[in-house]
Amino acid sequence: MSFDALQEKILAVKNPTVAGLDPKPEYVPEHIRKAAYAAHGETLAGAAEAIWQFNKGLIDALCDIVPSVKPQSAYYERLGWRGMEVMERTIRYAKEKGMYVIADIKRGDIGSTAEAYSDGWLGATQVGEQSCTVFDADCVTLNGYMGADSVNPFLNTCKEYGKSCFVLVKTSNPGSGELQNVSAGENDTVYGLMADLIEKWGVGTEGKYGYTMAGAVAGATHPEELRQIRARMPHTFLLVPGYGAQGGTAEDVQYAFHQGGKGAIVNSSRGIICAWKKTGHNGEDYQEAARNAALSMRDDICRFITIE
Amino acid sequence: MSFDALQEKILAVKNPTVAGLDPKPEYVPEHIRKAAYAAHGETLAGAAEAIWQFNKGLIDALCDIVPSVKPQSAYYERLGWRGMEVMERTIRYAKEKGMYVIADIKRGDIGSTAEAYSDGWLGATQVGEQSCTVFDADCVTLNGYMGADSVNPFLNTCKEYGKSCFVLVKTSNPGSGELQNVSAGENDTVYGLMADLIEKWGVGTEGKYGYTMAGAVAGATHPEELRQIRARMPHTFLLVPGYGAQGGTAEDVQYAFHQGGKGAIVNSSRGIICAWKKTGHNGEDYQEAARNAALSMRDDICRFITIE
Repeated sequence: MSFDALQEKILAVKNPTVAGLDPKPEYVPEHIRKAAYAAHGETLAGAAEAIWQFNKGLIDALCDIVPSVKPQSAYYERLGWRGMEVMERTIRYAKEKGMYVIADIKRGDIGSTAEAYSDGWLGATQVGEQSCTVFDADCVTLNGYMGADSVNPFLNTCKEYGKSCFVLVKTSNPGSGELQNVSAGENDTVYGLMADLIEKWGVGTEGKYGYTMAGAVAGATHPEELRQIRARMPHTFLLVPGYGAQGGTAEDVQYAFHQGGKGAIVNSSRGIICAWKKTGHNGEDYQEAARNAALSMRDDICRFITIE
Repeated sequence: MSFDALQEKILAVKNPTVAGLDPKPEYVPEHIRKAAYAAHGETLAGAAEAIWQFNKGLIDALCDIVPSVKPQSAYYERLGWRGMEVMERTIRYAKEKGMYVIADIKRGDIGSTAEAYSDGWLGATQVGEQSCTVFDADCVTLNGYMGADSVNPFLNTCKEYGKSCFVLVKTSNPGSGELQNVSAGENDTVYGLMADLIEKWGVGTEGKYGYTMAGAVAGATHPEELRQIRARMPHTFLLVPGYGAQGGTAEDVQYAFHQGGKGAIVNSSRGIICAWKKTGHNGEDYQEAARNAALSMRDDICRFITIE
């Protein structure tokens, strides 16, 4: 399975983008927040209800034109268990609407712990005789600093359940080079070595498009490095953050793709979910604004690549 | 504040150890699981109730002799939001019992996302006019692969709320060297460079014992490297996993400490919470067994260091 399902959804809607569901409070239009606080008070429960309504509206507005959503765990954890319940509901709802769900959790831990994460996020948790699915995302993001034993438990679950993961290589944040770009190995960099490790870890899990179940995160904000990573990781599906608000352009992200617009997906969070802030309608039109922004992003990227 | 509170708790009970609350299902004695499943069925709710009862019993048994507990988030996330609710309750209960709580979450993300994690785990989440504490741990573990902008938001929260964090340097798992021990910089290693970054990030947050709010994780399973890390990070409090079940010995962990047994805390999870498996009483005695194991661990480590 690997990334086949994601690639097919991308081909079906001819759109290689993922909408980041990062519901910071100020991203949620006021009418949604007001209604939620009126029902639940200015409480964690009220905030959780607000982001659920916001997410649901975004998914409804995007599900036929955007192949995937990527909820960022931090914005749910920050509301405690109530937020995590909304995370579960958001994943379930997006999948019901036919979207490929990437849970952006960036986990990484020793083997037995990685197994527990993997059960919860991708596989199933055994309780007595019962096997219970929990978050049940299609894909997660991981941090490979701890080495193969922190990633392999996820890959085992991916094989069993036909899922996939993206491991950090070169991130989009301004300080990413502080460790990642340090010289390492023989005329190489830390992120370059990480790229090789991920290619190696994935061997044997290739799907029909040639990509392994171990994808990689490579930021749009470093286009030259993105180009090198694409060349260096021929069997690796790339998740490309940093387009739009963080500064990456359509011209930059083209380097992430193989021929036919394959092998990569570009994320935008603020650019889509905050698009309503630029229309002057106080957010009543957030669904339409998100949809228009997603279509513009698709068209922008497709000036440089052809999806076929 | 920094690690002052933790250091003082260690000095008060003369025990530089932390009990890892990693409640894998097979670690929970059968009588607890049976009672929880009888009340809630073999469901996620049943499993959550079982680990809550187990944790509560462990905290009751340990709180006057062990200064700290470290719940590992994966074992709670694997039960979804119900598990996270138990994580919140466990943190609150351990703090009420006077323990210093390290939430083992190993998070790391871009700045705005790191802020959201930091609000949820250490600080407070703003909802309208209200400021809501959520997980409210004393300390978290972090992964610094993404650089300073992934750690600084946590350090800002630490300063505001008097809390602290541990950033991964050299982890205890068998594959930790795959990236961490690669040669990097000038005659150095990836973990060595990470050690220097953490010392640098922490500057200006030193507490009364001289340690910054940015601690480091350095595994007991690599004693020579632990010794080097201790020398290289004079202002850094160390969290040392890998004692006991993972193979680290009391002789090995001594290198983590400064004079007077200061500046480090050694974790044991299985060695304490599964101690009941070695007594032949089916886990009815798990509290006594955990307490005895914790006392033995303390005495074992104190053969090599003096806490004063």
